[in-house]
Amino acid sequence: MTGRVILVGAGPGDPKLITIRGAEALAEADVVVYDRLAAPALLDMAPTGAERIYVGKEPGRSAVPQEEISALIVERARAGHVVVRLKGGDPFVFGRGGEEMQACTAAGVPVEVVPGVTSAFSAPASVGIPVTHRGVARSVAVVTASTAHGDGIDLATIATATDTLVLLMSAGHLDETTRTLIDAGRDASTPTAIVQWATTPDQRSVAGTLETIATVARAVSIGPPATLIVGDVVALAETADQAASTTEGSSAIDRMVAPLHSSYPGRR
Amino acid sequence: MTGRVILVGAGPGDPKLITIRGAEALAEADVVVYDRLAAPALLDMAPTGAERIYVGKEPGRSAVPQEEISALIVERARAGHVVVRLKGGDPFVFGRGGEEMQACTAAGVPVEVVPGVTSAFSAPASVGIPVTHRGVARSVAVVTASTAHGDGIDLATIATATDTLVLLMSAGHLDETTRTLIDAGRDASTPTAIVQWATTPDQRSVAGTLETIATVARAVSIGPPATLIVGDVVALAETADQAASTTEGSSAIDRMVAPLHSSYPGRR
Repeated sequence: MTGRVILVGAGPGDPKLITIRGAEALAEADVVVYDRLAAPALLDMAPTGAERIYVGKEPGRSAVPQEEISALIVERARAGHVVVRLKGGDPFVFGRGGEEMQACTAAGVPVEVVPGVTSAFSAPASVGIPVTHRGVARSVAVVTASTAHGDGIDLATIATATDTLVLLMSAGHLDETTRTLIDAGRDASTPTAIVQWATTPDQRSVAGTLETIATVARAVSIGPPATLIVGDVVALAETADQAASTTEGSSAIDRMVAPLHSSYPGRR
Repeated sequence: MTGRVILVGAGPGDPKLITIRGAEALAEADVVVYDRLAAPALLDMAPTGAERIYVGKEPGRSAVPQEEISALIVERARAGHVVVRLKGGDPFVFGRGGEEMQACTAAGVPVEVVPGVTSAFSAPASVGIPVTHRGVARSVAVVTASTAHGDGIDLATIATATDTLVLLMSAGHLDETTRTLIDAGRDASTPTAIVQWATTPDQRSVAGTLETIATVARAVSIGPPATLIVGDVVALAETADQAASTTEGSSAIDRMVAPLHSSYPGRR
């Protein structure tokens, strides 16, 4: 008897930001296929005897190719198992969940999609930045910085199209990304923030302008995974001090909202 | 003693698409302030004795002004209560949660933001449409159709900027919206879908092109709340029959994924 595949959005990092349906899917899993960003607390939601298969990228090693992951989940489902494919954020927002859905469908394996809280909107929220706000921003675009350069996407056309711009996976490309946006006409003084490890105990963030954020982020060693937010909404999270300020500990940008991760042990 | 306010994203409709943290917040609520789209099953997560305050718009009546809602949650928190402000989708994505956060901060009331699964990405997912997909779409923009006309937003600049375009609250503006997008250079033959009551038992959807979707949606009486998805990713959910097809029951666009609402009673 064929099993099935459930593509589950794990949310941005905080294990309590998975959905109830996502947690239920984990609880009935025979097999969990997961990435680097999955919190251990989420894996603990699966039965003790469930098979746990890591397919993420380790520093210095190659990631498991997408085709192999798709083949793996189809194979385990065909063996009769309930397979949960746990993906950071939302499976269908830069998560390649669409490819896994297609692989299942092509193989005749039933597939369910459980959406998740996307990092694109919750990383900003975790530092008090609403991606839209009456009178400030009425449109938002989401791209990944990692595919934005030299790989078919025209960041220049997106630079000024929407009031708010969110760039996922932005940490390794800040100089190039911000220069492209400014060259394309986005005001260099646009408030800009970057959030690393959003909604986890390791969350760090820093704010500045489109012109300064790369330097400021470098100064405090912001690395991946990180989300860049460009637009006047960023100023809603800032205090009277509009200058760049780091937010480790308790400075400006973090004070607007209670940390999302304050009430539980979190990930490591 | 001052209480506090928790702005909770309820998700797109399916009560199981609230986060675990959101459900916890409801369980500790003294007061729940909710809108029209909140599922009764979510309100049932609050203690029996909790005060439930409806602030949504009823057909034929005015909605409670935002300023009154903000004043209400601040007042109840100042009276010492834990106030959950339950909002459809995500509080910070066209949810006016930013204004409520500001009202709390200005009043010295502690406020926590619990992000939710946004309808912008989960309504497409509910019919098997990933808003991004390798080789098909590497960028997505989100706007609301209800403020896109005559109210300061320039839909024309957004029309062609991203591969995928999602328009929330689109049902009452389909002719105007699609005409604006085509006039701004978006190809009239772009695959386009509309999903009403996404992730609820009342979910209905229909697919066509940017040119035909308004007519097709009218033919099957798609009304609010509805999300419009424009872009080649829409075709990923379609079968060989690329013509417009309704999806009540079991036709094309719904077959790609198991209905998200299949395993529980859902809302009414």
